Amino acid sequence: MEFMEDTVTKNSIYDGKIINLETHEVSLADGNKAFREIVRHPGGVCIFAKDEEGKILLVRQFRKPMEEAYLELPAGKLEKNLTPEENAFKELEEETGYKCQNLTSLGAYATSPGYSDEIIHLFVAEGLYEGQKGGDDDEFIDIVRMTDEEFMDGLRSGTIKDPKSVAAYTLAKLL
Amino acid sequence: MEFMEDTVTKNSIYDGKIINLETHEVSLADGNKAFREIVRHPGGVCIFAKDEEGKILLVRQFRKPMEEAYLELPAGKLEKNLTPEENAFKELEEETGYKCQNLTSLGAYATSPGYSDEIIHLFVAEGLYEGQKGGDDDEFIDIVRMTDEEFMDGLRSGTIKDPKSVAAYTLAKLL
Repeated sequence: MEFMEDTVTKNSIYDGKIINLETHEVSLADGNKAFREIVRHPGGVCIFAKDEEGKILLVRQFRKPMEEAYLELPAGKLEKNLTPEENAFKELEEETGYKCQNLTSLGAYATSPGYSDEIIHLFVAEGLYEGQKGGDDDEFIDIVRMTDEEFMDGLRSGTIKDPKSVAAYTLAKLL
Repeated sequence: MEFMEDTVTKNSIYDGKIINLETHEVSLADGNKAFREIVRHPGGVCIFAKDEEGKILLVRQFRKPMEEAYLELPAGKLEKNLTPEENAFKELEEETGYKCQNLTSLGAYATSPGYSDEIIHLFVAEGLYEGQKGGDDDEFIDIVRMTDEEFMDGLRSGTIKDPKSVAAYTLAKLL
């Protein structure tokens, strides 16, 4: 079966600070046309890391689209001229104040493949040591530390409701 | 620490078929201003289900933003006037041809809380029996059946790279 959808016409709707928006008219396998809305996003990294006491490092920050604070693993957007791994080193330190000795890739995942091209690169960080907390001027972030049991309780109770954090936790355990 | 971000001014950039786009100027905890781009999405459902032989049901479909076919658990957008549970019953049947006797919620997750308000409701379906495959005119979908071992291999090899599928699989096992 042929799955391709070729773009027939494309419109650029919005070129923004972080995301762009396009609409495409595409031709389907049966020759019919369909309409697709596509958000272009630079992608990101997300890091599963435990501190010197073996506690999982999470960050809590206000997420305007959700109008509430979210508890997530440390994560951030990809920056130009940095590899995903370099980004992960940088983001972990900026958000948690920890440097790490090594990072292992858990793969790259599409957060919402139906309408966005965002890809998030998941990593496990090991060998944490003290660095320098910093980060974006427009982010207010609290660090939260959880045992494995507390993390699982967070999943059960709905305190943690961010799929990339669930995926990174799972993959760090299973792969 | 106060995490709120109050909207000072808001612009509607795009009202589309599935998504809308807004930009907000917000005031931060320290009184400074920041700029947020927000995609409004109706949300969706994603269903973890096994067929009569105990194989996990997945669907493969072309995802235009990624320009490739993706292997995911059955999933779909929320429709107006249907609860997430009603949507999950409907979507499972449309995409796989199976009805199910019961659904258990695995919680609601924000796929990209940094720029989108999309919430995906995860379910486990049990008691599958034959229904009627159907679905949207503009979707071409193949059904793929995997043992648990094959699913895990898919995670390891990167064949499955969709965080909602990883999260639903994990939560179905752990919760």
